[in-house]
Amino acid sequence: MEVLKQNFLELFPKIQQAVQEADFVAIDTELTGLQPIKSRLFFLDSPQQRYSKLRHAANSFLVIQFGLCTFTWSREKNGYISKPFNFYVFPGSVLGESGGNERTFLCQSGSLEFLSGCNFDFNKMIASGIPYVNRAEELALKARRENEANNPDIPIDDNNRDFFEQTKVLIDTWLQDSTEKALEVPAGNGYLRRLVYQIVRNNYNGFVSAQKKDRNIEIVKLSVEEKDKNAQDADNREAEFSKMVNFSSVIQLMIDAQKPIVGHNCFLDMCHTMRHFVDDLPLHVKEWKNALQNLWSLVIDTKHIANQHPTLQPLIQNQPSAGSTALSDLTALVQQEPFLSAIPDIDFDPEFTRYSTSDSPHYHEAGYDAHCTGVVFLRLTHYLLSQEEFPVTNVSKALLTSPALTSYYNKLNLMRSDLKTLNLTGAEEAPEPRATHFILTSIPPNFRNNDLQGLFEHLGTVSIHWVDDWTCCIALHDETKVAQMPVGRLGDARNEVVEEDGEIQESKPSDNIVIHTYADWWNQILFDVENASPAVHRKRPPFDPASVDRNSKVRRLG
Amino acid sequence: MEVLKQNFLELFPKIQQAVQEADFVAIDTELTGLQPIKSRLFFLDSPQQRYSKLRHAANSFLVIQFGLCTFTWSREKNGYISKPFNFYVFPGSVLGESGGNERTFLCQSGSLEFLSGCNFDFNKMIASGIPYVNRAEELALKARRENEANNPDIPIDDNNRDFFEQTKVLIDTWLQDSTEKALEVPAGNGYLRRLVYQIVRNNYNGFVSAQKKDRNIEIVKLSVEEKDKNAQDADNREAEFSKMVNFSSVIQLMIDAQKPIVGHNCFLDMCHTMRHFVDDLPLHVKEWKNALQNLWSLVIDTKHIANQHPTLQPLIQNQPSAGSTALSDLTALVQQEPFLSAIPDIDFDPEFTRYSTSDSPHYHEAGYDAHCTGVVFLRLTHYLLSQEEFPVTNVSKALLTSPALTSYYNKLNLMRSDLKTLNLTGAEEAPEPRATHFILTSIPPNFRNNDLQGLFEHLGTVSIHWVDDWTCCIALHDETKVAQMPVGRLGDARNEVVEEDGEIQESKPSDNIVIHTYADWWNQILFDVENASPAVHRKRPPFDPASVDRNSKVRRLG
Repeated sequence: MEVLKQNFLELFPKIQQAVQEADFVAIDTELTGLQPIKSRLFFLDSPQQRYSKLRHAANSFLVIQFGLCTFTWSREKNGYISKPFNFYVFPGSVLGESGGNERTFLCQSGSLEFLSGCNFDFNKMIASGIPYVNRAEELALKARRENEANNPDIPIDDNNRDFFEQTKVLIDTWLQDSTEKALEVPAGNGYLRRLVYQIVRNNYNGFVSAQKKDRNIEIVKLSVEEKDKNAQDADNREAEFSKMVNFSSVIQLMIDAQKPIVGHNCFLDMCHTMRHFVDDLPLHVKEWKNALQNLWSLVIDTKHIANQHPTLQPLIQNQPSAGSTALSDLTALVQQEPFLSAIPDIDFDPEFTRYSTSDSPHYHEAGYDAHCTGVVFLRLTHYLLSQEEFPVTNVSKALLTSPALTSYYNKLNLMRSDLKTLNLTGAEEAPEPRATHFILTSIPPNFRNNDLQGLFEHLGTVSIHWVDDWTCCIALHDETKVAQMPVGRLGDARNEVVEEDGEIQESKPSDNIVIHTYADWWNQILFDVENASPAVHRKRPPFDPASVDRNSKVRRLG
Repeated sequence: MEVLKQNFLELFPKIQQAVQEADFVAIDTELTGLQPIKSRLFFLDSPQQRYSKLRHAANSFLVIQFGLCTFTWSREKNGYISKPFNFYVFPGSVLGESGGNERTFLCQSGSLEFLSGCNFDFNKMIASGIPYVNRAEELALKARRENEANNPDIPIDDNNRDFFEQTKVLIDTWLQDSTEKALEVPAGNGYLRRLVYQIVRNNYNGFVSAQKKDRNIEIVKLSVEEKDKNAQDADNREAEFSKMVNFSSVIQLMIDAQKPIVGHNCFLDMCHTMRHFVDDLPLHVKEWKNALQNLWSLVIDTKHIANQHPTLQPLIQNQPSAGSTALSDLTALVQQEPFLSAIPDIDFDPEFTRYSTSDSPHYHEAGYDAHCTGVVFLRLTHYLLSQEEFPVTNVSKALLTSPALTSYYNKLNLMRSDLKTLNLTGAEEAPEPRATHFILTSIPPNFRNNDLQGLFEHLGTVSIHWVDDWTCCIALHDETKVAQMPVGRLGDARNEVVEEDGEIQESKPSDNIVIHTYADWWNQILFDVENASPAVHRKRPPFDPASVDRNSKVRRLG
């Protein structure tokens, strides 16, 4: 069901009912872009670095379509009923405030082209997208309105003082001498018009109204009744503002209803959802995890389940798109055995015909993707439940409570990362160890790949991945050399050699380099994230490796 | 005439002919936004500050529609023929390079809504916009292609070494043992596919081809003829690249033809046109003026003529939209006397029916606005020529050469600025003096409005406008106090008082403040711009007042 600015209020009760009745709600977002140029994802990102990059993305790009699909167990049908809502959203100059909510935002041309290829309607987005502001933005708008209402006078500059005085005299004379109900006052630009409004507002005790008419201002004498009606209208406009159309109220429904939220690869979706529809994003990943848990105590990422659950791995590896956990591939996979027979039917509610009556899939329409995400979730988890030794009696309850499943919940998949997940409810798990990988810290400035290669040439070919300007990861190609890597401060290792030889060597710039095993480095990173206080973090923001120009360094050796 | 990616090559000769035959070319652009939040225009912007802000805008936002309208004098018709071309443009992932030309760019929601209200078709823009790159971007793309062609191998990481070796063996075995013409090699992700291409490219001497087929790579044995044809195709693709569809070639036509360019309020248009379709923008305004003059020796801004030509002022002031020089108001104005009878007919070429057959105007469609700009130019200037004492014999030549007009050419209108124009061919003219305005420099850090008010309380009410963190403009409301303003270093003025009194006072933080008359300050600014060497400029970029948070200071006194 498509929801636009024009039918939002009418459909709101239907959305509310669907959310309140649901067993869970699946979501998806379409965005104007994925990552800003300077915050590309990196496989050694710490949880804080990764979150900072996604936070940057959510602060830069916009959500332009939101998919919400409710799934409800039906005893009658002995199956699930799906209600997919597809919302076009756009933070336009809305709320009766022309320009009041103007947003300057980033787009990636490739993302727009991709969506255009999926029949995304950009004209509809701009003309009919449901407006939105988060709490912080709404407060700022309200403050601005109050400020304008209480303190509306603008300074009169020297050039326009004459205009101001003459207009005042013109209106005064007309009120005294004329029987005409209306007077047109010329005011050729916005500044002059504001001055005329100011004159009318601050004099005449409300018995005169002013309204733009072409390039003039029309001044009208009011009767007592008209004056009172005018005041009433202003009050109504204020009341309108608090009832303004705002897509955030749909997210508030989902928060109030406390239903489990299911997404596919949804870390970025959740960042955008919070940023645009709830509140500004905190700086620290731990604060963000707490804030998200306060909104929804159960968030499920189907990509994490598909990537990590051992029972599913052989089935996913053997599918035609070997190993892929893309939403479309998983959707195809769960329409086959053994998933098909493990689960009751999933049917669209009869009112929701957009996807049920169409022959071709609508991938990358947010409402359709949300539906597919819910279907994948149901089929994967029902299959996993069916593999349990003890038969499950209440399926729709077991889905959310069975220990076989819940250890995979509240964990968000991390893309292109050695760290597989972000754990919303506890400490992060370190990645699988990599024996051949070592992390070097405190690398002197201007050290380049060939300097590092020189240091380790006795260890054979190495690959070098820079983490930031003074940190890199070195991977040995020859596993048999791992034991020869001098873990610890490089100078100390050298000094040992010196002592044995008895020769005294000068200290070298490389002496301060510290070599960590891959496992030790991650343990330190994860300890820091778990124990960083937000205040400390604010003083020292995480280093952004992408901000450094290292073209000259990114050369492969060997 | 609408020009899209699909009909661009077909229509190109028609565009070329129109430009080459034209007396002048009028242009207009539609953009994704006007000014980034942190570079709002300010009435005391120096030419360098103003240019820096527009340069920032051109580097942030995109041109999404370009209007080009040629005007040609027709002896037969004894009138002008207009050919308006309206180009949708979009810098997509084009040139046969998926993702090769991805652009991350800014939008203002209000600008998009405004264009949407004018029937701008955003779906058409994305799906059919003519791609573009400037010279710098084209060179970067070519370098990347050459780099990829010459040095295409990617490193094989440890996890995929087995895959690499096994795939090589698989293909070798198949070539030796099998009679099948094709072999499908599984390769589940982009990295693995690149490895398979690498194997095929570096072995088998071109007698094997590789192509993606679903998620596999299909390997095919080639005959000698097929191998040769393959090599030929690759050459053709390279040739295609150099003939790629690029909207910049239309701008190159305009440069090659050296026709006068006419725009309305076109400083920002010219910045965008150079940035997106010619080359990256220089840092310094003087360099930019030189670069623009090198492209087009004659650029005419109709808004400057309308705002500044004294003969036009009474006519513009007396129109219904008193004093407005907005394009739509001027277009309406010049359709009346005295403009109407001063000029021959202006007709659309019969092939250009979009605007001639429509009842309603198409304002803010770039092709239409370009047409209107040309019409305004012709009617204003013909009227001005008709006011000359000596009758003009060759109108279309006099238009570009009459001294009554040419002093208004090569000058671009500056919006919201005391400086009225940017002079493309010489030094800037200082603004009209303002006797009540003074500029204070070297204001101590943390000085606020009330500190300044305290200093000048004997001068009555003042308005304070901050220029940057240490510079502000103070306007006296009381003209009679102007002579009491102590121009020069404030401490020196105090010391004079001290000497007269005979009392010794401690030096104050405000002593270093220097007070300039408005005229002196502008003279210094304009001298600096004229004499700044680009090298000096690069070391000390102009201060951006918007980068300073001065909310606490922006309070009005008095």
